[in-house]
Amino acid sequence: MGDLVKRLAVLGSTGSIGQQTLDVVRALPRRFSIVGLAAGKNIALLAEQIKEFKPEFVCYSPVGNGDDGAPAHLADKKCKFLPLEDIACHPRVDTVVIAISGKAGLSPTLAAIKAGKNIALANKESIVMAGEIITGEAERSGAQILPIDSEHSAIWQCLNGEKQKAARIILTASGGPFRNYSLAQLQEVTLAQALRHPSWQMGRKVTIDSATLMNKGLEVIEAHCLFNMPFESISVIIHPQSVIHSMVEFIDGSIKAQLSYPDMRIPIQYALSYPDRLPNPRLPRIDWSLINNLNFESPDFELFPCLRLAIEAGRKGGTCPAVLCAADEEAVALFLAQRIRFVDIAALIERTLEQHQVIANPALEEIMAADAWAREKIYQLVSRDKC
Amino acid sequence: MGDLVKRLAVLGSTGSIGQQTLDVVRALPRRFSIVGLAAGKNIALLAEQIKEFKPEFVCYSPVGNGDDGAPAHLADKKCKFLPLEDIACHPRVDTVVIAISGKAGLSPTLAAIKAGKNIALANKESIVMAGEIITGEAERSGAQILPIDSEHSAIWQCLNGEKQKAARIILTASGGPFRNYSLAQLQEVTLAQALRHPSWQMGRKVTIDSATLMNKGLEVIEAHCLFNMPFESISVIIHPQSVIHSMVEFIDGSIKAQLSYPDMRIPIQYALSYPDRLPNPRLPRIDWSLINNLNFESPDFELFPCLRLAIEAGRKGGTCPAVLCAADEEAVALFLAQRIRFVDIAALIERTLEQHQVIANPALEEIMAADAWAREKIYQLVSRDKC
Repeated sequence: MGDLVKRLAVLGSTGSIGQQTLDVVRALPRRFSIVGLAAGKNIALLAEQIKEFKPEFVCYSPVGNGDDGAPAHLADKKCKFLPLEDIACHPRVDTVVIAISGKAGLSPTLAAIKAGKNIALANKESIVMAGEIITGEAERSGAQILPIDSEHSAIWQCLNGEKQKAARIILTASGGPFRNYSLAQLQEVTLAQALRHPSWQMGRKVTIDSATLMNKGLEVIEAHCLFNMPFESISVIIHPQSVIHSMVEFIDGSIKAQLSYPDMRIPIQYALSYPDRLPNPRLPRIDWSLINNLNFESPDFELFPCLRLAIEAGRKGGTCPAVLCAADEEAVALFLAQRIRFVDIAALIERTLEQHQVIANPALEEIMAADAWAREKIYQLVSRDKC
Repeated sequence: MGDLVKRLAVLGSTGSIGQQTLDVVRALPRRFSIVGLAAGKNIALLAEQIKEFKPEFVCYSPVGNGDDGAPAHLADKKCKFLPLEDIACHPRVDTVVIAISGKAGLSPTLAAIKAGKNIALANKESIVMAGEIITGEAERSGAQILPIDSEHSAIWQCLNGEKQKAARIILTASGGPFRNYSLAQLQEVTLAQALRHPSWQMGRKVTIDSATLMNKGLEVIEAHCLFNMPFESISVIIHPQSVIHSMVEFIDGSIKAQLSYPDMRIPIQYALSYPDRLPNPRLPRIDWSLINNLNFESPDFELFPCLRLAIEAGRKGGTCPAVLCAADEEAVALFLAQRIRFVDIAALIERTLEQHQVIANPALEEIMAADAWAREKIYQLVSRDKC
């Protein structure tokens, strides 16, 4: 042990990113130790993780119920049970991995950043909802935001060592499972089809967001916030193989791209090891004898209105991105519950955004109010439509 | 003017790289000034360049005749005529652009490096012939070697800001005009066909070297020297579009690539502006709506034995790379003079290498002797074969 070991808190440890983070730690026990774990759903898996990684602090808190005590299942564990935010800013923690999805990631993100912790951020909703507040707090406290999203990790890696700002960010998108569908086909899409992503293994919410291209839209807003890049200098191109994870164009016309097999452990490890890279034989290497083509095409904004809606919301700013996020989270939940069709997701979000009274430069309370308003609005619209 | 202006000597100013270097300077007159020009062939163009860029020092020296005085054509110019090596190490010069092709680049390269000048190096023969001597002298004098070759520029850009050594270098090759030829077709190749490169506009020697893949072989040796990378960690892949100029794989499985339209002004400008990048509206930008595919395939070592010969010569080391370079330069000259067939180039080089008595860790004199031996050997072989 010693200074070389980074002490991590993994918030959302039983989700897809959380589990992959622990796999990276498992491969590099001399560089990383787990001091905190937090989960809200899978208590059986959390119990196994506590057994394996022996964290000092644990939070088991099913989202929204406010119960931060030790559940009966975990009572035998030799760890201290703390609220999520207390783990996020605990002095024993060096880096907080925010692997919680959706709005629930915002509060621990802000707590960690205010405490000056470096955060490895997989939760895009928090930065989309409250980008200026988060980046402002990080500037004040000196906290570093280390992106885990494969696209933002790619951009960050490409910017490494560059003295000048980027001229353009080129976000790549797999295009999802419905890339070549017609509008008529899209109207018949089933939940099972939407959950079958062609290149990435991910959680359910982000898999649906990938199929609607909302995920890419949120990433445009995230790139705008994280890299201080105007929306007109952010492009999206469809790249079905998901080998190039994003690119940066510089002022001299040169472009850098970051590539790897689609495996989230690569950007997770980079966020944790930065500014170093660490050898990890578990991570896949590209075999170029197996890669014959990389394809590119322009995204279809007609077929995938979520991408357009997100970029418009980002440009309008204020409370619009929070409304976008909240409306999307609720609409996707309704689709996952099979209460609405795939194409209804975009339609509901668009109607919600149309009815929203934007507040410019909102305080956190105004963002939370806009969030609540949007969720309520989605349910009103759905109840009225009886879809 | 002031400290921001880098004072350049462009050696080989009338060749392809020299002219493109001057085009970069033309676009960025507040950042670069030309204090020295040297050329050996095109005196009319040199006279125009002197008129436009008003260098302080000029060398007009047809290769090998040792005449460094002011030729009658240029007698009216207000510049001082100096030998090539004196320009290369003149105190008024900040950076020396080595745009001379072939063996002739070695002497000014060494002179500039010993004088501690930064050199923007387009001449790959010098580093292939005498890589250890050059990198050793650079280490002693503190001179920086700034690669101009698009592949090595790409690698250098990808390594920028990285703390760890690369795990693998992946050199891309267009594959040249004969990528899909059969051996029978290759035996019938004409000079005109070989000079028609599919993606790059270059000088005649390097165009033929691209068609035989010798160019890529020399680049493997160059990459080995410049980036201190073992041969087994350097791969070559064929990428016909020449958009990805090369890639670096890191120890964590992440890869960075550098991309641009094939335009040598981009790596030239990067070498001159490093560590900055400068905006230059003359440089082309990739339009991703026009790029649908990037293709990759493994090189065919049977069809293109020059690639194999170069890598073998690089692994053997000592005087072998110098023999390779010299034999190639003579064999290509014979092909350009239509005295031998395209497939004879590799055959002659292979026979020369087979007959060479390698000297390990050679001094410069031994390298020059091996060079002279190889050139003589090629002519013996050709005279004997009467090809």
